[in-house]
Amino acid sequence: MIILGVDPGSRATGYGLVTTDDGDEQFVAADTIRLGATDDHPDRLKQIYDALVDVIDAHGPDSFSIEMPVYGQNPQSMLKLGRAQAAAMMAALNRDLPVSQYTPKEIKKSVTGNGNASKKQVQFMIDSILKTEGADLSHDAADALATALCHANRDAHDDSPSYTGWASFVDANPDRVSD
Amino acid sequence: MIILGVDPGSRATGYGLVTTDDGDEQFVAADTIRLGATDDHPDRLKQIYDALVDVIDAHGPDSFSIEMPVYGQNPQSMLKLGRAQAAAMMAALNRDLPVSQYTPKEIKKSVTGNGNASKKQVQFMIDSILKTEGADLSHDAADALATALCHANRDAHDDSPSYTGWASFVDANPDRVSD
Repeated sequence: MIILGVDPGSRATGYGLVTTDDGDEQFVAADTIRLGATDDHPDRLKQIYDALVDVIDAHGPDSFSIEMPVYGQNPQSMLKLGRAQAAAMMAALNRDLPVSQYTPKEIKKSVTGNGNASKKQVQFMIDSILKTEGADLSHDAADALATALCHANRDAHDDSPSYTGWASFVDANPDRVSD
Repeated sequence: MIILGVDPGSRATGYGLVTTDDGDEQFVAADTIRLGATDDHPDRLKQIYDALVDVIDAHGPDSFSIEMPVYGQNPQSMLKLGRAQAAAMMAALNRDLPVSQYTPKEIKKSVTGNGNASKKQVQFMIDSILKTEGADLSHDAADALATALCHANRDAHDDSPSYTGWASFVDANPDRVSD
């Protein structure tokens, strides 16, 4: 199975692909979609969408895993983040890929064993699990690979459904939502 | 020219089409995309996207105008709203329609002369401008038509560029942004 992990942001969106075979995970590709100097926000969404459609068409992933931060930012940042997330998800949905969402804490815990791990710790674990030491991954690309690995682990070791929806997330995390 | 106006929301997304001909505006169609009982958030985005692609393909608008609330809501609501906005915008972008964004205040002012008009006042003015009294429009559909009319007025009477991007919005409204 090939999993595409995505860490969306309004300035840079990381993506990473891993193959999983009975718990054996291999690095396929990872990069960062850096948004051009254009200030035109709709165009930025189109850039994220088009780049991910190209990645999907090139690598044919079976599954799409996305990082879903849910709190700790101001409303304007969240609006922009929601837009970037949706542009990324629309690429997957329009290519009929199942979409799973994980919180940053779930992703960090899955990869490092610690839900509060630093970006450096995540990157270190990604490099050692996927043998990407020489690839000089950006933080966004490493986070995206971590998001893909989180889904691989969830798929392999857990019978509980992944967070495929806001409502199920809220049900599972009533204390994390303020409205 | 045919303008498609959209008022996106994570539960209901209104849309409305008007034709403009030298200041003469005519009602074409309007409705509300109500999201099904599914709790699966990615699926909701796909519903908004698919419905608007169908509307675009059926009516062939030249331009896409979207309501862009920017403050006064909590981070979780803004995240969901940003996602709904992006799903709507992706439909326009993937059909090569230019996207213009207007704040609720700009839309209300354009249609009623008062940036703080109530939903009822907006609906009253929509009914009298577009002769839709008998159509029994929902508030979301009326807001979408108001968004289309706002763009028509901007196009007809104003040489200044519309807010097609976050940065231009911030430049024009430094006091409205908190980060």
